[in-house]
Amino acid sequence: MDMGLQGKWALVCAASKGLGKGCAAALVGEGANVVITARGADALQATADELRRLNPRAEVRAVAGDITTAAGRAQALAATIDAMAERGFGRIVNITSGAVKAPIDILGLSNGARSGLTGFVAGLARQPRLASRNVTINNLLPGPFDTDRLRATMAGAAAKGGRSVDDVMDERRQLNPTRRFGTAQEFGAFCAFVCSVHAGYLTGQNLLLDGGAYPGTF
Amino acid sequence: MDMGLQGKWALVCAASKGLGKGCAAALVGEGANVVITARGADALQATADELRRLNPRAEVRAVAGDITTAAGRAQALAATIDAMAERGFGRIVNITSGAVKAPIDILGLSNGARSGLTGFVAGLARQPRLASRNVTINNLLPGPFDTDRLRATMAGAAAKGGRSVDDVMDERRQLNPTRRFGTAQEFGAFCAFVCSVHAGYLTGQNLLLDGGAYPGTF
Amino acid sequence: MDMGLQGKWALVCAASKGLGKGCAAALVGEGANVVITARGADALQATADELRRLNPRAEVRAVAGDITTAAGRAQALAATIDAMAERGFGRIVNITSGAVKAPIDILGLSNGARSGLTGFVAGLARQPRLASRNVTINNLLPGPFDTDRLRATMAGAAAKGGRSVDDVMDERRQLNPTRRFGTAQEFGAFCAFVCSVHAGYLTGQNLLLDGGAYPGTF
Amino acid sequence: MDMGLQGKWALVCAASKGLGKGCAAALVGEGANVVITARGADALQATADELRRLNPRAEVRAVAGDITTAAGRAQALAATIDAMAERGFGRIVNITSGAVKAPIDILGLSNGARSGLTGFVAGLARQPRLASRNVTINNLLPGPFDTDRLRATMAGAAAKGGRSVDDVMDERRQLNPTRRFGTAQEFGAFCAFVCSVHAGYLTGQNLLLDGGAYPGTF
Repeated sequence: MDMGLQGKWALVCAASKGLGKGCAAALVGEGANVVITARGADALQATADELRRLNPRAEVRAVAGDITTAAGRAQALAATIDAMAERGFGRIVNITSGAVKAPIDILGLSNGARSGLTGFVAGLARQPRLASRNVTINNLLPGPFDTDRLRATMAGAAAKGGRSVDDVMDERRQLNPTRRFGTAQEFGAFCAFVCSVHAGYLTGQNLLLDGGAYPGTF
Repeated sequence: MDMGLQGKWALVCAASKGLGKGCAAALVGEGANVVITARGADALQATADELRRLNPRAEVRAVAGDITTAAGRAQALAATIDAMAERGFGRIVNITSGAVKAPIDILGLSNGARSGLTGFVAGLARQPRLASRNVTINNLLPGPFDTDRLRATMAGAAAKGGRSVDDVMDERRQLNPTRRFGTAQEFGAFCAFVCSVHAGYLTGQNLLLDGGAYPGTF
Repeated sequence: MDMGLQGKWALVCAASKGLGKGCAAALVGEGANVVITARGADALQATADELRRLNPRAEVRAVAGDITTAAGRAQALAATIDAMAERGFGRIVNITSGAVKAPIDILGLSNGARSGLTGFVAGLARQPRLASRNVTINNLLPGPFDTDRLRATMAGAAAKGGRSVDDVMDERRQLNPTRRFGTAQEFGAFCAFVCSVHAGYLTGQNLLLDGGAYPGTF
Repeated sequence: MDMGLQGKWALVCAASKGLGKGCAAALVGEGANVVITARGADALQATADELRRLNPRAEVRAVAGDITTAAGRAQALAATIDAMAERGFGRIVNITSGAVKAPIDILGLSNGARSGLTGFVAGLARQPRLASRNVTINNLLPGPFDTDRLRATMAGAAAKGGRSVDDVMDERRQLNPTRRFGTAQEFGAFCAFVCSVHAGYLTGQNLLLDGGAYPGTF
């Protein structure tokens, strides 16, 4: 399937590793040009090189920096959205978390912040000035994915409990109906589809990719 | 039904008018003592007098002031919760909004803030150190209630559209399956039940009181 | 709080034991007259006697029989609802299950049937011909309650695993944030509130009473 | 993106028109072979011819008949699923309806039936014997799509109200945030992605494709 992303530009934040990198790779694989950001310049540069090898025709730009001030981010978003609406095409994909549907006990503040973004997006995505101009906003909610972040968390748990990392990871896998973690590749593929020209009627959704871990019907 | 609130103390914020006042009145009607807060000292004093007339045996204390700094509120909440758990009884009821389930277009920031609180509460309420000690945390989500706030909004819409307030309000009523607004009394009654000794197994819920306006099955 | 149920008539199905009995008892305690049904005539008669002792002024009628044919039930419901709308007061409370929100693996058909009822009710409850005439329809979703049914299930699990019933039940309690099962009394109290004159603005809702076991934010 | 469906076999029910046809076309476009079913033999044959022209290398088989007996369908499903699990690849996609999330007033029985399927699927999809063998089950929930069915409904409404069909359709479009109906092509594209080798971690989900019409955050 041609995602229709050839030559389009994508901004992918936190793209040096893990799910962000998975998304950037899938988009570059579809022929999109990308601007990738992350705080660590070295890892970001390495990822940029990797993406260029993946698809030599795609243009890849790396901008190291911190996008964590709320004000700057809101401004950036607002500016970006209006330009998208003018052009008649735009896809915004937020990576939130499965914790938005089922709160994770020890992550109180993260639950709050991500849930807040979710509520904000729900209203924004349904504004006809965006939706009717082919600008969509969706959230992807990852469950447990096999990323550096996950491995670091597991390593921490292993050290604390005096167990091997493999042991902790195996146990964790057994908790998922699929008996495995997700991969950054499949996360990126879903992201690329949501960004594609085919997905203009999909907006304001919270798309959970968790191997069926969340038990809720909805 | 005896709600089991005789002699218990309740803190009701934003209690001088509307839904907060409805909750305070229902609790005082059940024999609870209340500390009520609001920013406007005069309205607060008038409400305190009214509550005392409602149930002369209930103690009513009025504390004018602003509870809107996040830090102070978080500290207050944390302190309160621990004491509740020690005593083996506590009920926290947040009045959020039906907008938590269905975002209201023009209220982007409110959508975000209330959704954020919702996510935070969902994790906190399920902590066994609270739930197993008879401390519950729930959110009440009002739809359209006949309060000063609603009337002011409708008056604004009426003035803007060159219509009478009654006309705007009638039109709004027709949008609700019940063809009416809710009353602060019925809101207060639900709040009193959620605070009662009978509701210890009800926690972490978002309870929508909107006359069936929200169309979602869940 | 006076629930305003004095002298009203309530039909409570499956009322000889467990949650149905808890609901009947709470209603009779509020002064309602009840017609109770169940299949087993003896248990039903015993419950009727118990309810009469609970409130000698309440009238209690027992009708043994099976209400499980869908056609008969639908007819009964339809007839009942129209009469309710004419009178301007009606409360329908279905006891479904927490499994409506989180499917229970081994209960596929029950998941399907209860979910089906849920979808049907969601549409019906919002019809203005009912909602505007003070007729409400809500579902109560019990989590684990300390009933004969639960004990029988636990006894089965205990026998199968060669363990004591108490052991199995203790383990099960630890899975709930409250570290306990709910009681039929607190279930009945919630039912009585939902049936009360105060709850006319509460309709079309799925009210989960599970000690916070379901992990979903909504 | 290569969906990895080359040479795989797909059974598409109700495939002669509308969304079913959209799905079959997207799958054939990805190189899958299809068995298509529908009641009307002529329309089905015409669709089969069309699909063959779309991709001459794909094998297309048409089987006219009625799949509406529950027993036969359940047997077919059960048999199919086990074979999928054995092979280590399977994708089941049910087209339900946006009405599963927000009940449509006049469609009480349909609300019930589709909700029932939803509850059943939620439990089944999470069974590790399926999920861990790369068999996924998801529901696609269409909002308003530009199909023969929709046009017939609109024509009925137009005739009833003495208006033109175009007028009724324009009005209906304005109710959607996108100001348009969805197309069978974009529906099919989403279906093809959900069927792809990339979507093995996506299971048990209700995926709403409605242009943002449903107002709920979740």
